[in-house]
Amino acid sequence: MQTPREVFIISDGTGLTAEMFGQSILAQFSTPFRLIRKPFVDSVEKATQVVKDIDNRSKITGVQPIVFTTLVKPEISDEICKANCFVINMFETFITQLEEALNLKSHHLINRLHHNADTQSYRERIQSINFSLIHDDGQSKESLNDAEIILVGVSRSGKTPTCLYLAVQFGVKAANYPITPDDLEKKNLPEDLLSLKDKLFGLTIEPTRLSEIRYERFPNSKYATMENCKYEVKAAEILMQKYNIQFLSTTNKSIEEIASSLLQKINPETVTSTTY
Amino acid sequence: MQTPREVFIISDGTGLTAEMFGQSILAQFSTPFRLIRKPFVDSVEKATQVVKDIDNRSKITGVQPIVFTTLVKPEISDEICKANCFVINMFETFITQLEEALNLKSHHLINRLHHNADTQSYRERIQSINFSLIHDDGQSKESLNDAEIILVGVSRSGKTPTCLYLAVQFGVKAANYPITPDDLEKKNLPEDLLSLKDKLFGLTIEPTRLSEIRYERFPNSKYATMENCKYEVKAAEILMQKYNIQFLSTTNKSIEEIASSLLQKINPETVTSTTY
Repeated sequence: MQTPREVFIISDGTGLTAEMFGQSILAQFSTPFRLIRKPFVDSVEKATQVVKDIDNRSKITGVQPIVFTTLVKPEISDEICKANCFVINMFETFITQLEEALNLKSHHLINRLHHNADTQSYRERIQSINFSLIHDDGQSKESLNDAEIILVGVSRSGKTPTCLYLAVQFGVKAANYPITPDDLEKKNLPEDLLSLKDKLFGLTIEPTRLSEIRYERFPNSKYATMENCKYEVKAAEILMQKYNIQFLSTTNKSIEEIASSLLQKINPETVTSTTY
Repeated sequence: MQTPREVFIISDGTGLTAEMFGQSILAQFSTPFRLIRKPFVDSVEKATQVVKDIDNRSKITGVQPIVFTTLVKPEISDEICKANCFVINMFETFITQLEEALNLKSHHLINRLHHNADTQSYRERIQSINFSLIHDDGQSKESLNDAEIILVGVSRSGKTPTCLYLAVQFGVKAANYPITPDDLEKKNLPEDLLSLKDKLFGLTIEPTRLSEIRYERFPNSKYATMENCKYEVKAAEILMQKYNIQFLSTTNKSIEEIASSLLQKINPETVTSTTY
């Protein structure tokens, strides 16, 4: 492999925004990168230390490191710029434009996005994570009607990771319920689900991919055979069509892509309000 | 509440990067915003439809909507710019700068970051989510030594959401193990954990906050009383100190902040390599 170009991700908070920002831009280049995370750089002193790290790497590698930052305090940001590096600062670039468009002054307060553990919306998000855990794989019927969405599909069609992602990332109360071989034979969904039909959304998957996934955990089982996977997928799709349940295929889709499609159904709009 | 200013989040992929990008910048303003998500805008035709939506909202509200985009195809991006709105395009702004710094051409390929379900690293991430579920709350000792980190702490100190976040977001195999009243009485941690001491990391929490959290689920229980919470937290901290286990307090910290601190311990650097 080519020597990776070094990239510093510098933030006054968690660095998660800076990392996603950097990764999404770097993904446009087909060269390897080594990401070095520097979160919680919330003082000039800490910035000075990072400058030393950057200059040190710059000397060792012989090339200027790339720096992605979301630093909002000019004095910290200016300190980083003293290093021998190529800086891309998301905030500095856009905040002035936006101040003009909104005709408002921004706060330049650090770590706004992920420093919110005291708020009602944060508590609700933690409750959603717990809800999704309790309602994983049809474990509990209690308070199932509190779900914002209930994913159904055959075993290993991608329900669990999708629900957890929706809960963790968006605070969505997402339950999931397996379509079992028993349901398929009876050609019916359980009564508890049918009473919540508006919340149901189906996941399906190509039998070949399903067989691969099942085989990884249970090789040499009937469960994982191509024949059984073909039967289950086909029967589950017929069942979902019978009840008019919308479904999508998870084959070759990442959980982000599945979640993003589902979010359009659950919650295409969000109202945000930052209080100080 | 003030009428929220409307903000469109437009992406040719999932829109997750665009949303995080927008939210992190908007968090610097103390005015409410209504976010309208438009993911998967991957053709000029779809962009034309979005332009109509924007112009429609602009007429109704009487103000220009703000638009955050991560569109990489100039023809799609140009189409959006025809709407009566204020556009902030993350890619367009930085990609040219970065092409110069790297002396490389970028791909302008859409949906690079979250369209990766076929890769080895994506499969490992799904395996990490399953691992973290199986190893939640000390449920399983099997393959516990595959964990990259094992969180310990008293019940409701924040272990589960943190582990799930680490798995979902970073593909970290994160297990968690409760410190039980029994462990506290014996003043010892279970043998299985002690043999993996290098992977242990402790979470602690202020007794007042712990009591509140426990009370929500089990009001009027001894478990939730201030007295019991004080005892458990104190005893757990003494136990962690006895074994030299590093720990941090989760009181008032979001899971992102906790996860970011832990990531510095597990994996401060990542090598990324995008293949085409």
